[in-house]
Amino acid sequence: MYKYTLFPAALLCSVAAIADEGQWQPYQLPQLQQQLSARGISVPAADLADLSKYPMNAIVSLGYCSASFVSPQGLVVTNHHCAYGAIQQNSTAENNLIANGFLAKTQAEELPAGPSERLYVTELVEDVTAKVSGALTAKLTDLARFEAIENNRKQLIQACESDANYRCNVVSFHHGLQFFLIKQLMIQDVRLVYAPSESVGNFGGDIDNYEYPRHTGDYSFLRGYVGKDGKPAPFAKDNVPYQPKFHLKINASGVKAGDGILLAGYPGQTSRYRLAEEIAFARDWQYPASVTTFSQMIQTIDAFGAKDPALQVRYASVVKGYNNRMKKMQGLLDGFKVTDIHAIKQQQQQELAAWIAADSSRKVHQKALAALQEVVSAEQQYQQQTWYFDNAKRSDLLKAAQDLYRLAQERQKPDAERELGYQQRDLKMWQGRLKRLDTSFAPSVDLALWSQQLAVYLQQKPVLRIKALDDALGLVPGMTAAQISATLQPWYDKTTLGTGAGRLAWLDKTPAEFAASNDPFIKAAVAVYQQQIALEQQQKAIQGALLNTRPAYMQAVIAFNQSKGKPVYPDANSTLRITYGHVDGYPAADGVYKTPFTSVRGMIAKQQPTGVFQLPAKLVQAYQAKQYDGYYYADLGATPALPFNSVPLNFLSSADTTGGNSGSAVMNGKGELIGLNFDSTYESISKDWYFNPAITRAIHVDIRFVLWMMQYVDGAQNLLDEMTIVRD
Amino acid sequence: MYKYTLFPAALLCSVAAIADEGQWQPYQLPQLQQQLSARGISVPAADLADLSKYPMNAIVSLGYCSASFVSPQGLVVTNHHCAYGAIQQNSTAENNLIANGFLAKTQAEELPAGPSERLYVTELVEDVTAKVSGALTAKLTDLARFEAIENNRKQLIQACESDANYRCNVVSFHHGLQFFLIKQLMIQDVRLVYAPSESVGNFGGDIDNYEYPRHTGDYSFLRGYVGKDGKPAPFAKDNVPYQPKFHLKINASGVKAGDGILLAGYPGQTSRYRLAEEIAFARDWQYPASVTTFSQMIQTIDAFGAKDPALQVRYASVVKGYNNRMKKMQGLLDGFKVTDIHAIKQQQQQELAAWIAADSSRKVHQKALAALQEVVSAEQQYQQQTWYFDNAKRSDLLKAAQDLYRLAQERQKPDAERELGYQQRDLKMWQGRLKRLDTSFAPSVDLALWSQQLAVYLQQKPVLRIKALDDALGLVPGMTAAQISATLQPWYDKTTLGTGAGRLAWLDKTPAEFAASNDPFIKAAVAVYQQQIALEQQQKAIQGALLNTRPAYMQAVIAFNQSKGKPVYPDANSTLRITYGHVDGYPAADGVYKTPFTSVRGMIAKQQPTGVFQLPAKLVQAYQAKQYDGYYYADLGATPALPFNSVPLNFLSSADTTGGNSGSAVMNGKGELIGLNFDSTYESISKDWYFNPAITRAIHVDIRFVLWMMQYVDGAQNLLDEMTIVRD
Repeated sequence: MYKYTLFPAALLCSVAAIADEGQWQPYQLPQLQQQLSARGISVPAADLADLSKYPMNAIVSLGYCSASFVSPQGLVVTNHHCAYGAIQQNSTAENNLIANGFLAKTQAEELPAGPSERLYVTELVEDVTAKVSGALTAKLTDLARFEAIENNRKQLIQACESDANYRCNVVSFHHGLQFFLIKQLMIQDVRLVYAPSESVGNFGGDIDNYEYPRHTGDYSFLRGYVGKDGKPAPFAKDNVPYQPKFHLKINASGVKAGDGILLAGYPGQTSRYRLAEEIAFARDWQYPASVTTFSQMIQTIDAFGAKDPALQVRYASVVKGYNNRMKKMQGLLDGFKVTDIHAIKQQQQQELAAWIAADSSRKVHQKALAALQEVVSAEQQYQQQTWYFDNAKRSDLLKAAQDLYRLAQERQKPDAERELGYQQRDLKMWQGRLKRLDTSFAPSVDLALWSQQLAVYLQQKPVLRIKALDDALGLVPGMTAAQISATLQPWYDKTTLGTGAGRLAWLDKTPAEFAASNDPFIKAAVAVYQQQIALEQQQKAIQGALLNTRPAYMQAVIAFNQSKGKPVYPDANSTLRITYGHVDGYPAADGVYKTPFTSVRGMIAKQQPTGVFQLPAKLVQAYQAKQYDGYYYADLGATPALPFNSVPLNFLSSADTTGGNSGSAVMNGKGELIGLNFDSTYESISKDWYFNPAITRAIHVDIRFVLWMMQYVDGAQNLLDEMTIVRD
Repeated sequence: MYKYTLFPAALLCSVAAIADEGQWQPYQLPQLQQQLSARGISVPAADLADLSKYPMNAIVSLGYCSASFVSPQGLVVTNHHCAYGAIQQNSTAENNLIANGFLAKTQAEELPAGPSERLYVTELVEDVTAKVSGALTAKLTDLARFEAIENNRKQLIQACESDANYRCNVVSFHHGLQFFLIKQLMIQDVRLVYAPSESVGNFGGDIDNYEYPRHTGDYSFLRGYVGKDGKPAPFAKDNVPYQPKFHLKINASGVKAGDGILLAGYPGQTSRYRLAEEIAFARDWQYPASVTTFSQMIQTIDAFGAKDPALQVRYASVVKGYNNRMKKMQGLLDGFKVTDIHAIKQQQQQELAAWIAADSSRKVHQKALAALQEVVSAEQQYQQQTWYFDNAKRSDLLKAAQDLYRLAQERQKPDAERELGYQQRDLKMWQGRLKRLDTSFAPSVDLALWSQQLAVYLQQKPVLRIKALDDALGLVPGMTAAQISATLQPWYDKTTLGTGAGRLAWLDKTPAEFAASNDPFIKAAVAVYQQQIALEQQQKAIQGALLNTRPAYMQAVIAFNQSKGKPVYPDANSTLRITYGHVDGYPAADGVYKTPFTSVRGMIAKQQPTGVFQLPAKLVQAYQAKQYDGYYYADLGATPALPFNSVPLNFLSSADTTGGNSGSAVMNGKGELIGLNFDSTYESISKDWYFNPAITRAIHVDIRFVLWMMQYVDGAQNLLDEMTIVRD
């Protein structure tokens, strides 16, 4: 089925002139004061640049999602899918919070969100480029460059984290052109306060994922707690609510079509400055190869699930994740068909080259593109070469064994010299990860998935295989998946890695103990270790080369844009960003315009008696009894032909978002909360590579729906009372 | 899948105030002068009421479709699907006009459209109520009333048709409240002039049937020929083009969103004045029962087609017809869910009752509703009782045998006394129908379909079965479809009705010859004849009762509306009607607005290498080479966010249409042709029962697409030259 239509290139350019593209670092906002004002945003750009002021001081990271403080008592609002772990962890067969939802009527009733849940508040963002890469000579080998940068980063992090209340990171911006030290207050006691039932919070489930019209009440509330001294502390019953300096006001009047909005959060990763050659690689090889692998794995898991409902439950979140990534990659491939991003990038590269050639003062940039292209080509070769080997290590137990052995090896060094990710500060993360596997693992499924990928690996020519692996696993060319499975079946009976306790027991062991082990997975991990490290060195060298060539290319791009008076935002990298835009629909296909607001009326029209479109009776009853005083709108300027006549539920904006922006505060021009970001439209998926302003839209939960649910459906008056609610 | 959303009743009412509802008899137009002017329609209403003037004199009926004259040389434009029979009939394996399209470069190259193709031009519409039902006393039995009316109609028709150039009909309006004599000039020599390839004329096929966005170039050209004396004559090589008094001017500037439009044609049947009880019956019994039967039959035919491609081809148009009716009924059932038409009608009946009760002068209407309700109930009982028996006669050969025997019986009477439909004037129709069956019949499929329905019939209690049929077919309770099939299989070997010639041979036979026949189908037809006639008498009595009670009810409805100053249009009955409206999109679902224009750009985006979304290379090439001077539009006011930037293809209007309106001229406010009606949106299907102005839209081919195809793709300059093309 066609989903949307081709827009002529000329059009893209003309619309781009008023585009809301850009995931800006807060310090960049003052350069954009004019654009913000044009969108009706009255918060001074200087305030947005100051993380100690309103509203940015109220913006929170969960590490994997975004959130914000909405009361002086540390109340935090984020997406339902971001609080899902906390909800799941507190659910039992008797009291299923996923199905029933949860509301703490007092603070005493609030539930621990889990030992690894954190709230991060970014307090400092400092340019440390000089310290990270400033002193490096051009003579360094690629590998030495990579390692020097890693060492400099580690030292800065260590110094910063001398205060245990903080989590620090040194993050690359513009792909190594700049490095910033990010210092975040780390609140360690996080509690679940309120979540609607899954039928509201995940209404439409996987079917509606990435789709619009959308009717999902994807919100939940957490609360940060600290010790009585006001400082972060692990969970303790007598901890007290964290009191943020600022919390977001909530504007219960919401927004209407055309209104300007601000969005602040932690976008994960984008590829906006990649080369045309990288798009071609993703389009022609990387994504199709991944889609093939994912669909093989999904089919295998589904076959097990069809026979055994227990396995279906156990692997539900794994399959959900695979499906989500598949849909995203399929969306990217579809998006590449609709908009020829490859051609657009080619043209941009030509324009850049022409600009450089036009003036001898730009000679410094002359070789940047060609140098980068060369390294990119090497990187692509490396990826294709290691693809089958990487897939051949698909077993979760083999991966655990490899991680544990690598940790043991790293522990031989002083902490500061260890690889990033294997230091003392990462231990909690490792413990959580090794334990958590229990909830999504079954030997039969793991063996089947692994054998399947091993059979594909085994069909490759020798140069794409690794002898150490073949030997360790007893692989012989020509073996079928069934034969491989029969060979490896005994491993699962023999290993002690099949349980969380068994895996955790290896956390303290020495390399010698690993080498002496008879556990087949441990033995395999030890056997391939040298080869694995050799490949990693190869990859680090490529990364080092990229850390040399990409900054040079970005410098040229930035200079080119500066010459046209345009500021340049860096690719997303999980750091705090601000994007602005306006509430707007989009032309989804020839003859189809998607309007910016959906409603509870539409949600009820989608209701089905079973499956992911079920609704709680109390929601339907409250709506049908017209219990929506204050949240019922006749007109939002949303639909050209018809009045709105309902309670707004989801809305679209032109804000520039990506994964990680889930839960991001969506604010009106005064910086008051009017929604939560939670998804993008299918047509927008390719924005990770290229922001097409004509069709790129983010999907938000309207705060009026949240307030309506709290007041009329779930009775969360206690929370409404502690928030600062205003109206226009 | 949800398709559209519930609109609150209050909303329907408020929008209804500006609704374009109404399939008006031309003579009613002067009452609507104000509304026409408000829509920017400048043709005087008085002109529209005069069938001898421009533009109404140019409006044509094909009997089953609508059309219009577009040149002084009798050139006629209609839909591709209306000219399909003519195209098919001239296609051969070597020269497949369906696949390739057809263009006569000279009149000599034009092809006969087929012996039964006609062009009808309505010249006279005369109120003959007094002559048909005016003199009937209230004392008549229901059956006598029915027969008296039929006799009066026959006499009027016979007198009118004394001029063989005319076809006449006496048609009931407002369900028997009024009768009009319709006199139509009948042009008997119709030729195929130009048809695009099916890939344009039926782009999207069954998949896009009733769907929007739509991209179908559903147009074709025919020409009427007459004898050298200017009078209608059967096909003869030296006939000359008919010269209509008027032909429609074509406005190559088309229309834009919001523009007023006129639409003239021959809508087939609507049920706008049915009772709430009739909607409940259709919703709860009639449509679900029909959907079940159709889906059984489609499954059976599909199973044959899967094994034998020849059978698939042979039954393709049958299955297409079943699918179309299924989709329509499913659309009606879906529509009833979206808009509670039953409740709306109940409320209207209550308002009517209250209005009648409010004033003693309205006492005459007091019993109208209850009396009608009683007859409707009897009619519904009759329908349920005969449903299985009707399905049990599913065999095309049994039906042919029954028709032939009935014809033989009727021929025993003087022509004027025969049943309508069995007179001398109907003979050609019968010959055509009996012959045509050859193209869509196979004994194996006929037997399977019949046995299937007989098995269902046999499961019913005795009161729902007819002993004469059971005996004639040798049916015994408990027989399976397979057993029935084995019993009836020999009939197909023995009968002579399996060929067109075999069937036609029976056209002249006497009832005695039928009675003496050993043909099993003829024997069965004779055996059930008396029972069939008895049931028919029962039905006629019900019709007679309806001809008594429905006019009384309509009188009350009309009086009620007149008291509010509202004229009332009659339900559609295949007579010439005018509807007006404006170019407009519609909200199709919560968050989805369908915009009023589609484009060639969107058509090409839907293109697929195989199947119903293939496109002719020459169309794609012409478009991509930008050969569209004069037909390329940057903006049609169509899409809120984006310029249009393409050649318009299909567009939506609020005009009130139904089946039979296919091919209807869509005119601008000056009465110039700007499009052809060809379909309605899925959300509009329930308009046959209730016109919901918020979502009801008809789909038209934009005349600019037709002209673009003629000029830039198919090279039909000869036709462009004879048309009168103007621009704004």
